Amino acid sequence: MSELLDKLKEINEQAAKLSTIGELLYWDMRTIMPEGGFDAHAAAMDYIETEGFRLSNSEELYNILKGLSEPEEWEQLDDDWKFIVKTMREDQERSRRIPEEVFRRKVAISAEAERAWEEAKRASDFSIFAPHLEKQIAITKEIKSYTHPELEIYDALLDDYEKGMDSATIDRIFTELKEGLVPLVKRILAAPQPDDTPFRRTFDVEAEKKVQEYLLKYIGFDFTRGTTAESEHPFTLDLDPDDVRVTNHFQPNDVLDPMFSAIHEGGHAIFEQNVNPAFKHTAAGGCDYLGIHESQSRFFENILGRNINFWRPIYADIQKLQPELKDVPLEAFAAEINHVRASFIRTSADEVTYCLHIILRYEVEKAIFRDNVPVSELPALWNRLMEEYLGIVPATDAEGILQDMHWSDGSFGYFPTYLLGSIYDGMFLEAMEAELGPVDALLADGRLKDIVGWLNKKIHWYGNRRLPKEVLQAVCGREATAKPLLKYFEKKYGAE
Amino acid sequence: MSELLDKLKEINEQAAKLSTIGELLYWDMRTIMPEGGFDAHAAAMDYIETEGFRLSNSEELYNILKGLSEPEEWEQLDDDWKFIVKTMREDQERSRRIPEEVFRRKVAISAEAERAWEEAKRASDFSIFAPHLEKQIAITKEIKSYTHPELEIYDALLDDYEKGMDSATIDRIFTELKEGLVPLVKRILAAPQPDDTPFRRTFDVEAEKKVQEYLLKYIGFDFTRGTTAESEHPFTLDLDPDDVRVTNHFQPNDVLDPMFSAIHEGGHAIFEQNVNPAFKHTAAGGCDYLGIHESQSRFFENILGRNINFWRPIYADIQKLQPELKDVPLEAFAAEINHVRASFIRTSADEVTYCLHIILRYEVEKAIFRDNVPVSELPALWNRLMEEYLGIVPATDAEGILQDMHWSDGSFGYFPTYLLGSIYDGMFLEAMEAELGPVDALLADGRLKDIVGWLNKKIHWYGNRRLPKEVLQAVCGREATAKPLLKYFEKKYGAE
Repeated sequence: MSELLDKLKEINEQAAKLSTIGELLYWDMRTIMPEGGFDAHAAAMDYIETEGFRLSNSEELYNILKGLSEPEEWEQLDDDWKFIVKTMREDQERSRRIPEEVFRRKVAISAEAERAWEEAKRASDFSIFAPHLEKQIAITKEIKSYTHPELEIYDALLDDYEKGMDSATIDRIFTELKEGLVPLVKRILAAPQPDDTPFRRTFDVEAEKKVQEYLLKYIGFDFTRGTTAESEHPFTLDLDPDDVRVTNHFQPNDVLDPMFSAIHEGGHAIFEQNVNPAFKHTAAGGCDYLGIHESQSRFFENILGRNINFWRPIYADIQKLQPELKDVPLEAFAAEINHVRASFIRTSADEVTYCLHIILRYEVEKAIFRDNVPVSELPALWNRLMEEYLGIVPATDAEGILQDMHWSDGSFGYFPTYLLGSIYDGMFLEAMEAELGPVDALLADGRLKDIVGWLNKKIHWYGNRRLPKEVLQAVCGREATAKPLLKYFEKKYGAE
Repeated sequence: MSELLDKLKEINEQAAKLSTIGELLYWDMRTIMPEGGFDAHAAAMDYIETEGFRLSNSEELYNILKGLSEPEEWEQLDDDWKFIVKTMREDQERSRRIPEEVFRRKVAISAEAERAWEEAKRASDFSIFAPHLEKQIAITKEIKSYTHPELEIYDALLDDYEKGMDSATIDRIFTELKEGLVPLVKRILAAPQPDDTPFRRTFDVEAEKKVQEYLLKYIGFDFTRGTTAESEHPFTLDLDPDDVRVTNHFQPNDVLDPMFSAIHEGGHAIFEQNVNPAFKHTAAGGCDYLGIHESQSRFFENILGRNINFWRPIYADIQKLQPELKDVPLEAFAAEINHVRASFIRTSADEVTYCLHIILRYEVEKAIFRDNVPVSELPALWNRLMEEYLGIVPATDAEGILQDMHWSDGSFGYFPTYLLGSIYDGMFLEAMEAELGPVDALLADGRLKDIVGWLNKKIHWYGNRRLPKEVLQAVCGREATAKPLLKYFEKKYGAE
């Protein structure tokens, strides 16, 4: 065994400790930390992040990675370690090219822009946020010129969130999808709507918690290697591959939202819990590709969870746990969880219109980065696209362009990954049905384990080890395409 | 401002960050960590402890403390900083005198002894634990010969847990107490016993949690600077003076235990929440004197919480929250929370017999360290003392000498602090009543705030800044004495 490789493993273990601590601080802040704990948590977080930055940018690591890349060392590495060394080297080199002054400026701009966004959203006044958004766009371009000088700007942005994905592919598949979806949504909205009155009542929150536990167990969340808590917004977090946690937000006036949050976050968590343990604490472990990650949470939430057959084997149990659903027949329940509405807010959109919410954001990001459209013109662009895609126009910026915080911290190129997830899902569903048979029958027969086992084996096991495009090739044998997703939508909603 | 002092403050802030992280890891492990999280938590904890050890034993800190102790620097320090520098210097010098080899041996012996104790307790066989206890005693003596060469061995042990306290004082006050208590307990046990049947039923655990929240608010726990969770055994922990947390253990077959755990841990927490904020992140902040700390948890739990008048203003609310108590009159409730029983297990003993459980352990520790009684003779000594003090003899070692884990990790000298807390309480009660009037009337009038305010001002505010003996002088104007506690017991139980 190479001495350099041993040293790299030591550094990986050290990084894993820092990561566990950082994630735990974040977890605690978002779940139970009292107000007064903020300063101490922030100070501790700052210390851990500084240590982490030092470690990942150290000369020592640089020399280890460089040494392992020399022919005599490189040839001794197996393919997994070659991947790990190559990934770490690329990441470190990109990061080290950002001048410290630029990095500091970025941190300062983000802090101010996040504050300005909060204020602008409260006041529903885009002009408060606009100058900060301009600065955030400028510094983002500047940073990308250091980290990804070889890539076109939007491809450079994508590289942070969905490695190897490019805007030409996204242009192609989003257009494909949009062209099918806009008329489909119009048809769905013109048809008679399901009756949602059984869901407009007060539900027992303690029962909602029991339903979440039931659902998480049903879909295969491993409670010996994970746990749950409550937070303002649901999220998934891994302190370690053997300690993966999900949160939820329970409310008396919405019984469906916590159910689908549980299944969604459960999907993220089941992914992390099932990566090849040999990759633990290395750059091959976990999954940092947001589109691929989201494909799993959305597969569980939408492809499985919004299928009436998912509920057939368990609906009686759910009704027992949540007695307010006793008088709601399964068909009415299924109709409501697939209720398509033209609405302003992305996070509460149904699975169909959600796609258009994302395409809209992608169009705006392209306008910013590719066409250099002035920031002042963005709200009008937003509203015009809303009208074009969903036939509605937000009355205020708060329910329009100011609704999401992503741009305030410079997360440009992030939104498309949500939709990539769904597009991949259409492809995965097709591949899965070709091997296992129709998903409707599998679900109705309670063979969820077979489905989850297939996802584990085909996707989860590889973690970061396969790039998004490689996953599609390996699992589906083809390039990204929106056709299967469109087919799924047409089949599910087209008849209505 | 001195440059050295600035450097010391920086080190203190660094130590505070490490402390926050270490406590958070501990908190998480004891409250919600899933089984699978153990390795990652243990690795992170090891890293943080190593960093903490490095920092507190560093040459840099040594030189700063030495420099600040030089006349020209020393004279610029105010009294608080003189205290802080002096304390840190003493602690560091003691710690640095332990040879590394001895320290490592201690860690290894403790790990083995803890395991052996668990096995011995399960098998109820003292002989499994005996050889490890012998090693633990020997290494403890050895370490004290380095850290406290100037002190008699038992005084050296006490110094870790109740700084400045000495065994001569403890001998005097424990004897005082024992002589009054043994006959009192005999009288109480000979009298008719309260009827505990209303408490032998199943209680709603969710209601117990609401009662805890009510009680914590009532006694003044600050929820903006603290929070709660569940764990196997209740404990209090401060991530920071502004983030102090308590846990509890709720069970359907015991409604009283979680109430009194809440009040007890709440007392510890209220202490930490009310130390002078100027002491934050220094050796003057918090309170490391276990007797003084325990005096506050026990003042809340026993002196206040086991007084019928504490409940008068709130008992109707408690009955509403915990409906199973609806048919239990306040007098029956008060009788049960003061039900004195001769029992084997310290942790479930009432406030009166508890004292004798501690005196017994102190006698055994003296036998070990002062009279060099062989370990093999300790179970017989234990059982003889149980018979002498409480008139009962444990049938097994598990409910006798093996019940507590303290000795397995070398916490000799720890037990007496539990009773010192109660003895101090008698003195504090006397001093408080002299200033504020009878506690019965204060409680019955719902003037708990006045009582807590008095404790805040007289005791909590000073944190570590006043040593235990100094607290007694400042608050009570006298040396330690068990007479007030005995008077309190005689008044409360003597009439029965």
